[in-house]
Amino acid sequence: MNTYKVTFLPHNREIDASPGESLLRVALRAGVHVNASCGGEGVCGKCRVLIEKGHILEGVSERLSKEDAAKGYRLACLAKVDDDVSVRIPVESSIDASVLNKLGAPRRTATIHHMDFNSLKEQGLFIPPVDKIYLELSPPDAQNNMPDVTRLIEYLKLKANEHKLELTMQVIRKLPGVLREKDFKVTVTLVRPVRDDGKTLITDIQPGDTTSQSYAIAMDIGTTTVYGQLIDLASGECLGEYGDFNGQISYGEDVISRIMYAEKPEGRKKLQEVVVATLNKVIHEIVKQAKVGTENISTITLSGNTTMTQLLLDIDPRYLRRAPYVPASTMYPPFSGSSIGLEINDKVIALLYPVVSSYVGGDIVAGVMGSGMYRSEKLTLFLDIGTNAEIVIGNQDWLACTACSAGPAFEGGGVEFGMRAAKGAIEDFSLDPLTFEPMLVTIGDVRPKGICGSGLIIMTAVMLEMGVINNRGHFNRDLGTPRIRQNNGIWEYVLAWKDETQIDRDISLSEPDIDNLIRAKGAIYSGCMTLLEEVGLSMDMIEHIILAGGFGSYIDLDRAMTIGLLPEIDADRVTFIGNGSLLGARMSSLTNRIRKDVVEVTKKMTNFELSETPSYMSNYVAAMFLPHTEIEKFPRTKQRMEARKKSLQEAGKTVGSKSLN
Amino acid sequence: MNTYKVTFLPHNREIDASPGESLLRVALRAGVHVNASCGGEGVCGKCRVLIEKGHILEGVSERLSKEDAAKGYRLACLAKVDDDVSVRIPVESSIDASVLNKLGAPRRTATIHHMDFNSLKEQGLFIPPVDKIYLELSPPDAQNNMPDVTRLIEYLKLKANEHKLELTMQVIRKLPGVLREKDFKVTVTLVRPVRDDGKTLITDIQPGDTTSQSYAIAMDIGTTTVYGQLIDLASGECLGEYGDFNGQISYGEDVISRIMYAEKPEGRKKLQEVVVATLNKVIHEIVKQAKVGTENISTITLSGNTTMTQLLLDIDPRYLRRAPYVPASTMYPPFSGSSIGLEINDKVIALLYPVVSSYVGGDIVAGVMGSGMYRSEKLTLFLDIGTNAEIVIGNQDWLACTACSAGPAFEGGGVEFGMRAAKGAIEDFSLDPLTFEPMLVTIGDVRPKGICGSGLIIMTAVMLEMGVINNRGHFNRDLGTPRIRQNNGIWEYVLAWKDETQIDRDISLSEPDIDNLIRAKGAIYSGCMTLLEEVGLSMDMIEHIILAGGFGSYIDLDRAMTIGLLPEIDADRVTFIGNGSLLGARMSSLTNRIRKDVVEVTKKMTNFELSETPSYMSNYVAAMFLPHTEIEKFPRTKQRMEARKKSLQEAGKTVGSKSLN
Repeated sequence: MNTYKVTFLPHNREIDASPGESLLRVALRAGVHVNASCGGEGVCGKCRVLIEKGHILEGVSERLSKEDAAKGYRLACLAKVDDDVSVRIPVESSIDASVLNKLGAPRRTATIHHMDFNSLKEQGLFIPPVDKIYLELSPPDAQNNMPDVTRLIEYLKLKANEHKLELTMQVIRKLPGVLREKDFKVTVTLVRPVRDDGKTLITDIQPGDTTSQSYAIAMDIGTTTVYGQLIDLASGECLGEYGDFNGQISYGEDVISRIMYAEKPEGRKKLQEVVVATLNKVIHEIVKQAKVGTENISTITLSGNTTMTQLLLDIDPRYLRRAPYVPASTMYPPFSGSSIGLEINDKVIALLYPVVSSYVGGDIVAGVMGSGMYRSEKLTLFLDIGTNAEIVIGNQDWLACTACSAGPAFEGGGVEFGMRAAKGAIEDFSLDPLTFEPMLVTIGDVRPKGICGSGLIIMTAVMLEMGVINNRGHFNRDLGTPRIRQNNGIWEYVLAWKDETQIDRDISLSEPDIDNLIRAKGAIYSGCMTLLEEVGLSMDMIEHIILAGGFGSYIDLDRAMTIGLLPEIDADRVTFIGNGSLLGARMSSLTNRIRKDVVEVTKKMTNFELSETPSYMSNYVAAMFLPHTEIEKFPRTKQRMEARKKSLQEAGKTVGSKSLN
Repeated sequence: MNTYKVTFLPHNREIDASPGESLLRVALRAGVHVNASCGGEGVCGKCRVLIEKGHILEGVSERLSKEDAAKGYRLACLAKVDDDVSVRIPVESSIDASVLNKLGAPRRTATIHHMDFNSLKEQGLFIPPVDKIYLELSPPDAQNNMPDVTRLIEYLKLKANEHKLELTMQVIRKLPGVLREKDFKVTVTLVRPVRDDGKTLITDIQPGDTTSQSYAIAMDIGTTTVYGQLIDLASGECLGEYGDFNGQISYGEDVISRIMYAEKPEGRKKLQEVVVATLNKVIHEIVKQAKVGTENISTITLSGNTTMTQLLLDIDPRYLRRAPYVPASTMYPPFSGSSIGLEINDKVIALLYPVVSSYVGGDIVAGVMGSGMYRSEKLTLFLDIGTNAEIVIGNQDWLACTACSAGPAFEGGGVEFGMRAAKGAIEDFSLDPLTFEPMLVTIGDVRPKGICGSGLIIMTAVMLEMGVINNRGHFNRDLGTPRIRQNNGIWEYVLAWKDETQIDRDISLSEPDIDNLIRAKGAIYSGCMTLLEEVGLSMDMIEHIILAGGFGSYIDLDRAMTIGLLPEIDADRVTFIGNGSLLGARMSSLTNRIRKDVVEVTKKMTNFELSETPSYMSNYVAAMFLPHTEIEKFPRTKQRMEARKKSLQEAGKTVGSKSLN
């Protein structure tokens, strides 16, 4: 795809943009503020910008006077990039411009690290867990009438150097017929053992040469969503991919309510059935997409958290939510996929990712395996953020992990106008440093409905840096903007006025909302700290951060560090892996190395229960500030906050009457 | 049970008898001839004997004159032993007596070798394949909240020194609940691996202490009959035993007709279903007899011939009956009994005896294992005689085996008055050496209906020794008895006259009948010879004979040697093991040693196809005489035949006009 160059003036900041991208989004990415509070529908008319060079598509609405339009003004929210352009942001004065210029910086875009099959091969990690081998056996005669199974095994020993072989009963059953179907020319499917001293299992035999058709399925069973991929084991390609809501959602949103439902009569059975129904729907869809013969699928690798794992297998999960939080097992033996109701051929062997504890599940282990963290020399922090945050710290030699309850703030819960990351959610935000007018970008570029988790982080970070809130999340009451107000005794900042929204109410961010975010980020940060302290290390020693999970891929790294959710670290030392659970499932479909390693890795992952770790509470209290009680831990944020003060002083302005610290 | 002493005069032969045994049977066992052709119903009135001492029950009928009865005469077939008695057999002259005295000898009774659990223990062979271990685990707490499976395994390692453990999914599923049912006091069931490097499988966990309840099922799946035993693994005792006809009989009497039926559409499925239905009936019956909780049954061991094995597992048997006679497999992996339709708890692991070839099946391997032949230093001949005879020769170092078609003569087929060993079948026989009048004993002591296989052997042997037939099985036409006659051009001996039978026809033994027997015994004997020659040995080197199968336990050893079915060998070097298949299944239920050894033993059993062995035909032709072309191979029979001639000469009698050789 072509990109165009967009230059913002007076900042003189240049950035690449995609054709059709709105100028508002481009500006935000460039760290250039444009007042805009209607989310991009041209309703507020505030985002007037002047196109000085190049041409632009659209950007005209009734909120823009004909005069202005004729001069080259456009509404940034409606204007779409179609050329290299120079765009001037109207500012009140050159002082304003100089302030603007010192603050802000191009935004760091999260790029998801995709698994690379070729590098897997280059690293010698491609040890396929499934092999198909074509054989031309000699037919039996009076001198050589050994049993069919013996003939096959002897031949594999002699001609393919395959030893320690075992056949499933299904293969023995079809063997006599299949051998004779194409004159003893057959393709056998070999599934490699996980342990070096284990046996190679012959799971299928087909007439003729079918070696080019070998597939696997990888699935992530999330509490909310189930994702599946159909993988070509020859090329490593993903031939089909599909996600759908976990059917269990009707029986409870989170794992705790699922467990409670499972305790009801027939509840567990019901939950097992509906999640299997979802898996079947996803399998059906990816098989359809991939257009492959289902008889050539040999394995399915599944990963999910501990509750999802136990519910899938119909194992009572009640002890997961009761102290001392004991899961049934860490490892599960391979099983026939069809034995739990999966609608796949009955030769398909299902492998479930092992779990570590009640709250560090197979999804996390899969992430650790799939991301390669367990093979890294660097001290790595692995973080999967959702309602629960799972934290893994370590390297190739050791791994420590824990889970902490972050509360629902990151998913829009516990925040008055909070919502999931869906259309109409404010996902990005900027503030005019002098007028404190907002710049809103919503998912879908429509009028705002609420605030999603990533938007919440960005707003809080921007307000902190701008001195709009202090390190306890309290609003500066004296900024002289009507947007900061007291409403039923609660201080809040109005993001969008009633008539700019879809909900016919003012949308605001309040102090209790910010407090909720502080608790959430505090829980996670102090979880990381506690884990590090338990192994005698500290935050500044972290060399690499891996962010997993849907939320992880939307997060704005800088902002997350500003509020103290993540430690400050260079961007090139952060990797986003997206759905780590699915990545791990896919990786172990492709290489047996992961299947072998996971047994040891899971044993190595030492689980800490934060509630049993005395230092956790004091770390938590210390993390209940923005970014943290010890601001020295966040030098970049400290510097920015100081620069903001200085810049305002230089500009001869004061912002309100109260000190910002 | 008490026994009484019965002394026969003038032979002066003393023998023990059971209370209630008929004098006729006692006489036959003692080798004393009494004319009797009505099978024991007092119809012919020929078996008059004089009770000289002691008293006797019954023995009086209208065929005995009041005078005679008053003198102490009784009919031997009706007279029942109730005291020590002296019984005089009326003979024509002292010469007759002296002839009688020289011929005949007490009969060798077949005693079945029963498996002895204590000797198994003493020999160090009792390595139970299933262990139940009672554990008192410490409940989890905050400091020790490892997963339930880990807790169990760690405990088994530390407290029971159990390593390399694996759990079934069923056990993992019930673990959380069962552990907490009786405060972490549980009994686990461990199934030992067959290979030393294998894993011990935990197949069950029960609350509390159930170690005293541990059972296994052993089953023989015969073409005709299915036998099952329920075994107490603690004591080695058999708590229930039951046999029933294999439901497949309705679809064909022998394996060939079963295979043909299986080739019809849905035929194989039908045969699988009906044999499983029979197994279920037997299982149900032995469980009822044993009165044990089915949840405490852990394993089921099954053995059957190759066709029965493949039909049980729903594996196409068509190639078993087509050259080059290729079975699907020798070994089968363990499987869940319920997976093939067995109505037992789904934790029960089924083990199938391996087969050697299409016609040497798991029943024979089981016999070799159960009899201990494979551990013997002695050169042993193992023989299982039915429609097919399976032969195994060897010792602890090597084993050679084959199967030959003996035809149905031993089961009463191909013989005009042949019948299965059922009520009314003539099972024992003697001849008056001078008058050639018969002495018949039938199963159930009723009037005769026909001749069963063991009766056929005895008749042929007696007639050969008495000079009634020659070594080609032809009747001496000049003995001057009306019993030897030509009927529609065929020579025959009338065993019972029409009015003495149940079938209102003369029952006779004809030359073609004897010829059939000669072919059957010739096939088996030459099979043994050929096998021995192939390994460079000969018949006289055999140190031990093991006879298996229902027929094997009825066979009269002496007579079988006389006709040349078995080589001449001392009785104490012959062992009858009865149902060797069931014995082997039971043995391997009790000791893992057998399960481990069977893998190597099966590989060691070198199969010979007689049809592919050139010397077989000439050996067969040489064995088509009574006892054999080379009479020197049967010195005892030769000596008896010569003694018979001499004794007659000494008595100054000639028997007919033709020479007997």
